[in-house]
Amino acid sequence: MDVAAYMAELGQQARAAAREVARSTTAVRNQTLLATARALSAARTELVRANQKDLENGRANGLDDAMLDRLELTEARIDTMIEGLQQVAGLPDPVGEITDMTYRPSGIQVGKMRVPLGVIGIIYESRPNVTVEAASLCLKSGNATILRGGSEAIHSNQAIAACLATGLAEAGLPETAVQVVATTDRAAVGELITMPQYVDVIVPRGGKGLIERISRDARVPVIKHLDGVCHVYIDSHADPEKALKVAVNAKTHRYGTCNTMETLLVDEEVADDMLPLLAREFVVKGVELRGCERTRAVLPDVIAATEEDWHAEYLAPILAVRVVAGLDAAIDHINRYSSQHTESIITENYTRARRFLTEVDSSSVMVNASTRFADGFEYGLGAEIGISTDKLHARGPVGLEGLTSQKYVVFGDGHIRA
Amino acid sequence: MDVAAYMAELGQQARAAAREVARSTTAVRNQTLLATARALSAARTELVRANQKDLENGRANGLDDAMLDRLELTEARIDTMIEGLQQVAGLPDPVGEITDMTYRPSGIQVGKMRVPLGVIGIIYESRPNVTVEAASLCLKSGNATILRGGSEAIHSNQAIAACLATGLAEAGLPETAVQVVATTDRAAVGELITMPQYVDVIVPRGGKGLIERISRDARVPVIKHLDGVCHVYIDSHADPEKALKVAVNAKTHRYGTCNTMETLLVDEEVADDMLPLLAREFVVKGVELRGCERTRAVLPDVIAATEEDWHAEYLAPILAVRVVAGLDAAIDHINRYSSQHTESIITENYTRARRFLTEVDSSSVMVNASTRFADGFEYGLGAEIGISTDKLHARGPVGLEGLTSQKYVVFGDGHIRA
Repeated sequence: MDVAAYMAELGQQARAAAREVARSTTAVRNQTLLATARALSAARTELVRANQKDLENGRANGLDDAMLDRLELTEARIDTMIEGLQQVAGLPDPVGEITDMTYRPSGIQVGKMRVPLGVIGIIYESRPNVTVEAASLCLKSGNATILRGGSEAIHSNQAIAACLATGLAEAGLPETAVQVVATTDRAAVGELITMPQYVDVIVPRGGKGLIERISRDARVPVIKHLDGVCHVYIDSHADPEKALKVAVNAKTHRYGTCNTMETLLVDEEVADDMLPLLAREFVVKGVELRGCERTRAVLPDVIAATEEDWHAEYLAPILAVRVVAGLDAAIDHINRYSSQHTESIITENYTRARRFLTEVDSSSVMVNASTRFADGFEYGLGAEIGISTDKLHARGPVGLEGLTSQKYVVFGDGHIRA
Repeated sequence: MDVAAYMAELGQQARAAAREVARSTTAVRNQTLLATARALSAARTELVRANQKDLENGRANGLDDAMLDRLELTEARIDTMIEGLQQVAGLPDPVGEITDMTYRPSGIQVGKMRVPLGVIGIIYESRPNVTVEAASLCLKSGNATILRGGSEAIHSNQAIAACLATGLAEAGLPETAVQVVATTDRAAVGELITMPQYVDVIVPRGGKGLIERISRDARVPVIKHLDGVCHVYIDSHADPEKALKVAVNAKTHRYGTCNTMETLLVDEEVADDMLPLLAREFVVKGVELRGCERTRAVLPDVIAATEEDWHAEYLAPILAVRVVAGLDAAIDHINRYSSQHTESIITENYTRARRFLTEVDSSSVMVNASTRFADGFEYGLGAEIGISTDKLHARGPVGLEGLTSQKYVVFGDGHIRA
C-alpha cells in the first residue's frame, strides 16, 4: 500500500467535505449525531465482535491489563458513546455566531463570525470510544475529521466508522466528512501531520511521548496537551479547614488525571501546624509523601524528595511536599517546575490571592478550589476534546469553541477607503 | 562568535524579563513607551548618523532604490516613530481583563483572564521603524521581545535599541525586556525560531519567501501573513454605481498593499453592462487588465489571462478579470485561488450576501465595501502587528489582543470535586 498516496486521498476528500460540513445547518449536523447514535445502538453485536478481534490480538501481542481494559468496548461503554452523541447534539452550535459588530468612523460595520477550522486530524491511542467522541465534537463544530486511532483498536474503530458513515449518509452529509484511517502502518501518522494543504490542525490525545513526537515533526499546528504537574499552595493566611479539604481532594479524588495535584507547597509560617494534619489525612488515604528537608523536620517519617520529585507527574498515590518562604517563593517554585496546567492558592488574603492569579502563568489559576475542577465539563464548555497546555489559540480545557476560529465580517453600502 | 550560545543567552534573559513585564502595571508600561519616545527625540543626530552608515553600506552592496528608500530614517520617519509610541501608550491595556465570570452548578466561579503570551520573536527586513513599532506593541501587551531586523539596517536598529533601553530603564523595567539581535549572522534566525523553551511565538514580517522559510523551519508557533490575493465579486444584483466605486477603490487606492484586489469576478448576467464601465475607469487609472475569454468577448483589447493570473498577487497596476456563472461559480473560484485574505461581494440581494459571508473561507469577508478596509486601524484595533492568514489563534488583522492569550481563573470557597 502506498501510504502517502492513501493519506493524500483522505486529505483531499476531507478538504472537499469540510466545505459541505461548514455550510450545513445546525439541524443537519445534529441529525448526523443522532443517526450515528441509532446506528451504534443497532450495531452492538458487530461492535462487540470487532472489539473481540482486537482484544484477542492484543492478548496475543502481550498488551498489559490496563491497556486491554482501555481497549474493551463493553455494553456500558457503547451506551456511554450513544449518550455522548446525544449530549453533543444538544449543545449550542458555536458556528456562525456574530459578535462585536460595531460601526467604525469610516461608516463600515465590522464584527467577527465564528467559523469551523476546516479539517481536524485526531491522533489517539487505544480507547476506541475516542473515535466517536472526537468525531462528534469536530462535526458539531462544522469541521471534517481524519481520525487515526491506535493500531491495536483497528477493528473496533472501523466498526465505529461504519456507524458514523451511516449517520452522515442519513443526514445527507458526505461520508468523507469523518474518515478513520484504515491502515495500521505507522507512516500514516507522519503523513497526516505534514499535509498543511489538507489538514488545518492536529489534536493528539495520548501519552507525553506521543505528543512530543508529533509536536516535533508536525508541519501543521498542534493543539497539544502535555503533562499536568499541578500545585496547591497553602498560604499562611489560609483557612486551615479549607486548606485540608482542598489539598486532600486535589490529590486523592483521582490519581491518574492530569489535573491532580502532584506537589503541595506550604508556607513556612503554618508548616508546623498544617503538615501534621495533612500527613494524617494522606496516610489514611495511602498517599506516599516525599518532602523537602523542612518538611522532614516536621514529619520525620517522610521520604526525602529529590530534584526529580519537583518535576514529577506521578499519576499515582505519591505527593511531593515542600515548605516555602511565602508567596514569592511559592510562585517561583511553580513558575520553575509547573507544567503550566493548573495551580491553586489557599488563602483568605485578598492581595495574595490577586497576586497569585496574576503572576502564576498556568492555563488555570484558582483560589480556594481543588485543581480537580480544571475540566471542560466543570467549566461549562459542555464537552472537551482535551486540555491545552499551549498558549496560542486554545489554553486550558478545549471545547467546541476551541475547534473554531473567527473571521472578520464587514458590512458597507458602497464604502470605499479615502 | 558562538551564535547559538548568544541567542540562548538572549532567550534566557527574555524569559526572565517576560515575568517582570507581565506583572508590571499599565502605568509603568506606558511610561516606558513615552520615555522611549523622548529618547528617540533626543537621539535624532545619532539615529540619522547610524542610518547613514547603513545607507552607505547599502549603496556599496548594490541595494536597489526601493530598498534604500525603505531603509532610510528621515526626520519625518523619526517623528512617525515617536507619534506611534505615543499612540500605543494611549491604547487601552488588554492585559488582565477578566471576562465571562459565571457560577457553575458546583458553586465555583469560572472566567477568563487575558494574559501576555510571554516572549515574542520578531523577524523583519529592511525598515528600521519596525523595531519601534513591534517593540511597542509587544511591550504594551505585557510581552518581552527579541527583534531580528535585516542585516542592512543593523546600525539603525542598534541606535533605536539604545533608545528603547533608555525608556525601559527610566520606567524601571529590565532592559532585556526588548532585545535587538546584535549580530548579522543568518544563523541567529535559525536559533530564534527553534527555541520553544525561550520564545512563545514568532511574528515574521517580510516577503512571502522569508515567511515560508520561517514557517517551514520553526519549532515555535508562527503568526504568519503570507500573500493577499483578494477578490471583489460583482453580483447580478449589484448596484452598478457601488460596484464601480468599490472595484476601482479596491484596485487603485494603493497597489502595493496586501488588501488590494487582484482579481475581479463579474456575474455573466451583468458582464455586458458592467465590463465596459469598469474598463473605462481602469484605463484612466492606467491599470492593465488580463481577462478570461468571456471578458475578452466584451472587451477585445484586454490581454488574455492565463492560469497563473488567477494565482497572482500583482502588487501592481494589473488586474485579472473573470466572468463567472453566478454566485456558486464565484465562491468556487475564490475558494480555489484566494489566499484567504479578504474578499468582497457587491450585491443588493440579501440571501446572496448572506451565503457569501458564510461560505467564503477568508479572514475578512465583506459586503459592498472595498477590500482596502481590511486593516487593524480601520477595524478599530488601534494598532496592527500584521495580518494573519492563519486560522488558529489570530485571523485577519492582529492587534494587541492577538499578542495575548487567555487563562482560566477559578474562585472557590474551599470547593472540592464531589
